[in-house]
Amino acid sequence: MGKTLIFGHKSPDTDTIASALVYADLKNTLGFEAQPARLGEVSKETQFVLDYFGVEAPAYIEKVDESVDSVILVDHNEFQQSVDNIGDVRIAEVIDHHKVSNFETKEPLYFRAEPVGCTATILNKMHKENGVILSKENAGLLLSAIISDTLLLKSPTCTTADTEAAHELAEIAGVDLDKYGLDMLKSGADLNDKSALDLVTMDAKEFKMGEAKVQIAQVNAVDTSQIYKAQTAIEKEMEQKISDNGLELFLFVATDILENDSDVLAMGSAKGHVEKAFDVTLDENNRALLKGVVSRKKQIVTNLTEEFTT
Amino acid sequence: MGKTLIFGHKSPDTDTIASALVYADLKNTLGFEAQPARLGEVSKETQFVLDYFGVEAPAYIEKVDESVDSVILVDHNEFQQSVDNIGDVRIAEVIDHHKVSNFETKEPLYFRAEPVGCTATILNKMHKENGVILSKENAGLLLSAIISDTLLLKSPTCTTADTEAAHELAEIAGVDLDKYGLDMLKSGADLNDKSALDLVTMDAKEFKMGEAKVQIAQVNAVDTSQIYKAQTAIEKEMEQKISDNGLELFLFVATDILENDSDVLAMGSAKGHVEKAFDVTLDENNRALLKGVVSRKKQIVTNLTEEFTT
Repeated sequence: MGKTLIFGHKSPDTDTIASALVYADLKNTLGFEAQPARLGEVSKETQFVLDYFGVEAPAYIEKVDESVDSVILVDHNEFQQSVDNIGDVRIAEVIDHHKVSNFETKEPLYFRAEPVGCTATILNKMHKENGVILSKENAGLLLSAIISDTLLLKSPTCTTADTEAAHELAEIAGVDLDKYGLDMLKSGADLNDKSALDLVTMDAKEFKMGEAKVQIAQVNAVDTSQIYKAQTAIEKEMEQKISDNGLELFLFVATDILENDSDVLAMGSAKGHVEKAFDVTLDENNRALLKGVVSRKKQIVTNLTEEFTT
Repeated sequence: MGKTLIFGHKSPDTDTIASALVYADLKNTLGFEAQPARLGEVSKETQFVLDYFGVEAPAYIEKVDESVDSVILVDHNEFQQSVDNIGDVRIAEVIDHHKVSNFETKEPLYFRAEPVGCTATILNKMHKENGVILSKENAGLLLSAIISDTLLLKSPTCTTADTEAAHELAEIAGVDLDKYGLDMLKSGADLNDKSALDLVTMDAKEFKMGEAKVQIAQVNAVDTSQIYKAQTAIEKEMEQKISDNGLELFLFVATDILENDSDVLAMGSAKGHVEKAFDVTLDENNRALLKGVVSRKKQIVTNLTEEFTT
């Protein structure tokens, strides 16, 4: 029997990396061999987390090779967010907290999605269900994933289950939730060394909305005006992505982690949909401030999908 | 807030009806209002079960009306097997044991699929997870669903989890597993009063295989040769379905519940795929005996899909 690989989505964020690492560990503890992997570069925020808890990043893979018997997807299910040759491999499991879309299998599988803020919250529960105690490091990884996905429990995606899990995990990990959380988010929001290309790719996800292809990139910042000093260069990279990938819309979302707002930049033939979806007017720079919007999943993708499909 | 409806697939079988009834009961016990429903006629086997345990069938619905706020799908996820206007309603949950295909949502949801033989096995587990004791009637319904889907624990789809659940549930329901199971299967296999149209619709499911539309109807019998006395009439109904629904293949599967074989009848432009998928030759009556094949899901759909997509 070949091996089992566990990985999250492309342009990995902290939940994707932490969930792959911790779930592989849980599988191994339960007697099923599995190896974590990643489909892209580790973000600065995630690197802060790995360094803090002394954990190695999973190995990078470009595609699933023939030594692999089956894969487990964490933190995503949509094929366009997964490894390029996902259509050729057997998907044994999915653990996720997103909507289900562009996903199918030929055989029954273990598919577990829950409408919570973070995959890590589900994994915390799975440890309890299996009577496995989390190590300090793994608790730290899961905690960091929750902080990252819920912007320190402030995002509308954050559920009671996420908040409870975060407090539990902070205790096991031995950190002060608020202090550690803000340090972690700030480390990720340090964008000084990022190129315009980095900014539009580091946390970009592609979606099919009706017949349209839409890419949404999100960056966290402590001061979004800093980011837009490079707006011309960012626009150039977005235009390139639009033409390379045949996108109808590229939405760049700069989220202020202290104010909990997002300053967005929209390009592509369907940018008018952004105005309708959020009831705003893009200014002459194609930008608009989305008050109180911090969640791509719950506040952006849902509204935009509605606009593209009705 | 509108109501929540729970239903299984069209052409309901015992797992679909039992799971809708028992999950609605569990939801209500846990404080969430939910009503069971069904999308088609109750089969003879299912009626035997309902009569035995003194339970009413869920109400029939043709479509989801506007009083409904959200739906929960049990025992299926593929939209073509669901209510006709499934695309217009919010799917809050899915509890299933099939492959995932032609399914998508706009929002995150609770999606639980496990590769076991029967939805009822998952529901039995969910009662334990929630600390809810099954009533004698509900245990009887879940037991009957397992017996039905696994042909009394003999199908290759039957897992250790199904077998264990069946024994547990038989104890709570106060029945002898083997005796009750055989009586129940025989009641469903009594096809004397069935018309040819009944036979090709009573447990028919449609699948998309690659670009092709395939319908597979299955009936259980104690003597399959009895069924084929009406072969000419059955063929006529199959031809009608092929032309009404634009099918590439209609496969009629008569399963011998004592011998655990299936005598199949294939019609449609793609009937050659049946020969290749099972390495058999259809005789001059378009029939072939598939030795040891009893499971549509695990032995038929997987092999045929492979043939249609490679």
